[in-house]
Amino acid sequence: MDAPPYSTSRARVTRLPSGEVEEDRVAVEEPLEIRVEGQPVAVTMRTPGDDEELALGFCLTEGLRPVAARPAADLAANVVEVDAPAADLTRIQRSFYTSSSCGVCGKGALEAVAVDAPRVESDLVVRFEVIVSLPDRLRAAQRTFELTGSLHATGLFDASGELLCLREDVGRHNAMDKVVGWAAGEDSLPLGRSILCVSGRLSFELVQKAAVAGCPVLVAVGGPSSLAVELADDRGITLCGFVREGHGTVYTHPSRIVGP
Amino acid sequence: MDAPPYSTSRARVTRLPSGEVEEDRVAVEEPLEIRVEGQPVAVTMRTPGDDEELALGFCLTEGLRPVAARPAADLAANVVEVDAPAADLTRIQRSFYTSSSCGVCGKGALEAVAVDAPRVESDLVVRFEVIVSLPDRLRAAQRTFELTGSLHATGLFDASGELLCLREDVGRHNAMDKVVGWAAGEDSLPLGRSILCVSGRLSFELVQKAAVAGCPVLVAVGGPSSLAVELADDRGITLCGFVREGHGTVYTHPSRIVGP
Repeated sequence: MDAPPYSTSRARVTRLPSGEVEEDRVAVEEPLEIRVEGQPVAVTMRTPGDDEELALGFCLTEGLRPVAARPAADLAANVVEVDAPAADLTRIQRSFYTSSSCGVCGKGALEAVAVDAPRVESDLVVRFEVIVSLPDRLRAAQRTFELTGSLHATGLFDASGELLCLREDVGRHNAMDKVVGWAAGEDSLPLGRSILCVSGRLSFELVQKAAVAGCPVLVAVGGPSSLAVELADDRGITLCGFVREGHGTVYTHPSRIVGP
Repeated sequence: MDAPPYSTSRARVTRLPSGEVEEDRVAVEEPLEIRVEGQPVAVTMRTPGDDEELALGFCLTEGLRPVAARPAADLAANVVEVDAPAADLTRIQRSFYTSSSCGVCGKGALEAVAVDAPRVESDLVVRFEVIVSLPDRLRAAQRTFELTGSLHATGLFDASGELLCLREDVGRHNAMDKVVGWAAGEDSLPLGRSILCVSGRLSFELVQKAAVAGCPVLVAVGGPSSLAVELADDRGITLCGFVREGHGTVYTHPSRIVGP
């Protein structure tokens, strides 16, 4: 497992009700500009660290095919340059600015915003005990480098529940982008034999990222939105929410889960 | 107090470990396109309801001066048209696409991404007991129309802790935009005598929205990021995080809180 250091900074705070003044730590949040072939395509508010993975994961899960990512040479730490095939350049405008302004109304919501991705075809089977253990495993690993109480986490696990990669960020989408970017760097996409587990709620976007990464099982401590359920159903992903204290709810494709 | 209905939809789920199959409710998430003077400026994934308030609040807190918002006439439910002064049109490009690509690196992070807003000058004083009571008041009001366990909430309170407006959404920024848009419609901006309380964590963007709305006190159940603290300090906002069970931490401008 790969466990990078995450940034915290110090703040002088007043405790209530004691009125005591002391030093505390807060999670660092800073903007990161992502450029594809020199063209700025997005700015995300993120926790510094693993910026190249974040940029790769972001581009991949937005439907691009990035080749490599590196910090911008002439600039300070908050810009990452991504190389991508020439054919992808024409997609950039569509992907980031106008995809959603073309047909939010005329088409169904899902068709309007979803990135093209093949249906996840994986015969992975996971034991029930593994599914319900993942949030605790995620939290235990998170504790080893989380000091602020304010970071979202995404963990990638194998079918036996072993943690393969953990990333944290003030933004939950960023945490997943970092994991997907890590997997791309390890040449282990698609994630057909793995499980993704997130610390928060399940939005449409998180399911989209899991779908593009080809991951068949997505587990969350919080609950999913309607569009998250709809997309998971359509893409063949097993979606589990409210996984806490030995219980959970499976919203789509429960057949991948066996036992007890 | 104004309490609109919020959308949920039904899903067929499997409970773990029982394997029981039953109906459950999930929070609706759908894309909303926001157009200013006919030009698409943003798509946000939101819970339907109060879309005009959401669009107004979004535009306001991005530095525009919207005049009115209405559903797009020729289209289905997921587009809102916003009227704004002609002078604002030139800001749109800057505000939404390029503000952050101009100087994320060269300038400090705060200068690069912050929307211009005057410092909040308010002599509001709030009793400690009120501050620590707000998350429970928010949650109690939320229970009256939350059925899914998956919606973020923002509440606007007066200095005695009375709830003035509550909005929920799958997106925490949307919940605050809806409250700010509601306040704009009530002609009660700036919010110099009020307190905003949010159900989650405090990102930079939430502090930004509170600053533009002129609100002097921002309270959260979760913790703030570094940039949230920095912006609150700079804009003269009292920022309280981890407010739970009678305790809390004040990160900036504690002098507005008195007692116990």
